[in-house]
Amino acid sequence: MKISHIEHIGIAVQNLAEAIPFYEDVLGLKCYAIEEVKDQKVKTAFFKVGQTKIELLESTDPEGPIGKFITNRGEGVHHLAFAVENLEECLQETEAKGIRLIDRQPRKGAEGLHIAFLHPKSTLGVLTEFCEDKNK
Amino acid sequence: MKISHIEHIGIAVQNLAEAIPFYEDVLGLKCYAIEEVKDQKVKTAFFKVGQTKIELLESTDPEGPIGKFITNRGEGVHHLAFAVENLEECLQETEAKGIRLIDRQPRKGAEGLHIAFLHPKSTLGVLTEFCEDKNK
Repeated sequence: MKISHIEHIGIAVQNLAEAIPFYEDVLGLKCYAIEEVKDQKVKTAFFKVGQTKIELLESTDPEGPIGKFITNRGEGVHHLAFAVENLEECLQETEAKGIRLIDRQPRKGAEGLHIAFLHPKSTLGVLTEFCEDKNK
Repeated sequence: MKISHIEHIGIAVQNLAEAIPFYEDVLGLKCYAIEEVKDQKVKTAFFKVGQTKIELLESTDPEGPIGKFITNRGEGVHHLAFAVENLEECLQETEAKGIRLIDRQPRKGAEGLHIAFLHPKSTLGVLTEFCEDKNK
């Protein structure tokens, strides 16, 4: 497996309208896109910091994954996403090494990326995502 | 404030000896340094992923910050560190914008960086660190 960089860091927030000003006015980053990912029951706001994006996640449904995360743990870092080449191969290789996968096949994520999650029980508590940008 | 990139992601783990094989053998990253930061009561292991480091943190004392974090929340992402220029100025600017600081003055962190933390109550649940590399 070849990981080139951290593609994004997903951060669960109660409310994008309250969170965006911290990242823009305090940290001086710029929100360049807001996107709803219906499948994941979230609205996301994106910021670029060097090679990596910060993806703020507001739940659109208390029963969705971010809604449950915030109920259980409060706001905070939700997942780390690594940029990989050949996602299908990475998933096979990862599973063969005994790691539990959430997604055995890639699916479509925000910004048109192909994504898959590994299970945090297998990854030392960090919900870990692989992303492939097929347009590159 | 000018943030150039994400300097590192701090991840609390129970045990470096168990965690390093996941990052090396599964993700294919290389642990390039292990360092004890006595002040923080941690042993750290470093990996480079593009511009960003992953810093695994094992507590050397259950009463230290990482020991308490793991007792309360389990293993997982502990903090995000942004690379800044002129850390003193960043801290003044951040405090002037109403953000609560943990460190009002820079102190020495791992790898000889100058660091300071913002309080997660002011940063939407994400323990946020600023780092300056004065050797650059």
